[in-house]
Amino acid sequence: MSAAAPEQRPVRFGILGCASIARKVARAMLLAPGAAVTAVGSRSEEKARLFAADNGLPAAGLRLHGSYEALLDDPNVDAVYLPLPTSLHVRWATAAAARGKHVLLEKPTALCAADLDAILAACDAAGVQFMDSTMWMHHPRTAKMREFVDDKDAIGDIKVMNSAFSFRANKDFLQNDIRVKPDLDALGALGDIGWYCIRAILWAVDYELPKTVIALCDPVKNQAGVLLSCGATLYWADGKNATFSCSFLTNLTMDMTLIGTNGTLHVTDFVIPYQEKSAEFSVASKSAFAELHIGWDPLPNKHVVMTDLPQEALMVQEFARLVQKIRDAGGKPEGKWPAITRKTQVVLDAVKASIDKGSEPVEVVS
Amino acid sequence: MSAAAPEQRPVRFGILGCASIARKVARAMLLAPGAAVTAVGSRSEEKARLFAADNGLPAAGLRLHGSYEALLDDPNVDAVYLPLPTSLHVRWATAAAARGKHVLLEKPTALCAADLDAILAACDAAGVQFMDSTMWMHHPRTAKMREFVDDKDAIGDIKVMNSAFSFRANKDFLQNDIRVKPDLDALGALGDIGWYCIRAILWAVDYELPKTVIALCDPVKNQAGVLLSCGATLYWADGKNATFSCSFLTNLTMDMTLIGTNGTLHVTDFVIPYQEKSAEFSVASKSAFAELHIGWDPLPNKHVVMTDLPQEALMVQEFARLVQKIRDAGGKPEGKWPAITRKTQVVLDAVKASIDKGSEPVEVVS
Repeated sequence: MSAAAPEQRPVRFGILGCASIARKVARAMLLAPGAAVTAVGSRSEEKARLFAADNGLPAAGLRLHGSYEALLDDPNVDAVYLPLPTSLHVRWATAAAARGKHVLLEKPTALCAADLDAILAACDAAGVQFMDSTMWMHHPRTAKMREFVDDKDAIGDIKVMNSAFSFRANKDFLQNDIRVKPDLDALGALGDIGWYCIRAILWAVDYELPKTVIALCDPVKNQAGVLLSCGATLYWADGKNATFSCSFLTNLTMDMTLIGTNGTLHVTDFVIPYQEKSAEFSVASKSAFAELHIGWDPLPNKHVVMTDLPQEALMVQEFARLVQKIRDAGGKPEGKWPAITRKTQVVLDAVKASIDKGSEPVEVVS
Repeated sequence: MSAAAPEQRPVRFGILGCASIARKVARAMLLAPGAAVTAVGSRSEEKARLFAADNGLPAAGLRLHGSYEALLDDPNVDAVYLPLPTSLHVRWATAAAARGKHVLLEKPTALCAADLDAILAACDAAGVQFMDSTMWMHHPRTAKMREFVDDKDAIGDIKVMNSAFSFRANKDFLQNDIRVKPDLDALGALGDIGWYCIRAILWAVDYELPKTVIALCDPVKNQAGVLLSCGATLYWADGKNATFSCSFLTNLTMDMTLIGTNGTLHVTDFVIPYQEKSAEFSVASKSAFAELHIGWDPLPNKHVVMTDLPQEALMVQEFARLVQKIRDAGGKPEGKWPAITRKTQVVLDAVKASIDKGSEPVEVVS
């Protein structure tokens, strides 16, 4: 982390759109070392002003823009955070890149991999950093879990994975939220929360793509055809598999379970930890039965990971560090983040295709 | 439990076969009120003698039989516990019933529902109690979880279920255990441990049968064609689904996760609790995010259920209570237990059929 020493000039973020999730990220930008919010752009200056006031953004030096274009033209902005509806991502993320702005993009990053490729190509051409806003990737718990996953002695070869992310949307959400509107977030629950399950699964296998995906039968759609509930099983060439479920219709659940030859990892709040300052997971390694099978010996171990900064602030800090390397030290964009994004999107596309084909197997094409 | 008051004459159990699991059940019979072991039958009297000595069975009044037939002819035996390989179940369970012995049968109960039906018909004709030896059903934790599952406010309608049961078998097991031999336990991991997953799923939905099952792709079989690792997704007519995995090839794991409209239940040791005297599960009900989605509020609740007797002793006690009602009070066999067994076997058959058909959907026929 040496390149992001706090004395460096902070990365100046422009927030492009005042979606509800932007409130959380605005707070993260206030908390994160190396970051500052210097502009807010919305469809009206008044909306931008309200957002800034509501979220305690310091007025000094803050520019409020009444259009997205104006924010992108602001020379006082190094990077944009883009929480717009998915259908607008290609247009505005490519526009941001074209103006030399680094891009922190909300997930789902695009409606399909081809759209994402346009965004990534624009970032690549402009030499700007791209990262999707998948916050849990940046929690120190995730790094700690990675140590176990990488430890072949502790977990061994992962063979079976399960992930679930659901929340119980209320009536207003199911009628009015952008995530149930075919023209705004056509991927519905799959894009909004299935994204995390797919990412978790790919993360667990160090981003090795599955060979085939088969959607679970009977996905639930709203009248406009947007997915409210669905899932899939992913199959790898070596025989491992992963099943995930995502839904707007069931209780808040954020499970990731990894079952390996040597160990089992459980986490039940992987996307947003129950509490901000600490997060847990459990690992059972080389589990066996006590004599006569009347209990387990050894027992699973619970691991608690503390963090001073919330995961979204750590994400902003990491993004800012990468931007500083490019802006201040002539560095190149870190390719790891767009690569991970793309793999997530590619699998998501395959799941969507399998759903559209009535749960036929769909090959994952990189 | 009034019919099983301890002053009643104990039910006299004969243990038919000295499998390793019989050691645990023999201990349970020593612990359980209302039960006594009065006979052990094996292929040789010497084996029976060794088993009795190894497991601390009181010699007084204990008869050792050098054949299964001899045990079944023993008038001093009310009920038999039958831990033989699955391929022998039809023969010996029907023989036991025909001699008026009540039948506590190890799982998997039969190689297919038609075989089970022969056993159940024999028990029915003889008026003897039938129960399969699925121990976790009798843990007070299971009753406590049932309260939550039945509470539509706490969990609501269950929509998605997951269950996994695996253990990492060693080389000796994979070469020599009866559970990998096609002539002894042809159902392999599906019968031995998938049984529990299927039972858990059926338990969760109050034994409503799924409409269709689709096996997970790429099951692992040994050279003799016996399943070492497999799974399936079960689909109900109302749209709910359940996915389970079972394997002899991955770390010991015993998960059941139920996701409902109002709540989520997690248990990670559902078959054999980590410890003998207490067992936990967690319920998250009406879970929501804290302001700005930086944590959860309310948090899930952990529930701890204590038990003086281990679940297998509670199973023996319950079975003995039912036998006493019949033997001493002219009662009739409790139909709940064979009905549950049959549903489990029917679903297991469908999963096996789907595996055999390369993961084609298979209708569940009751």
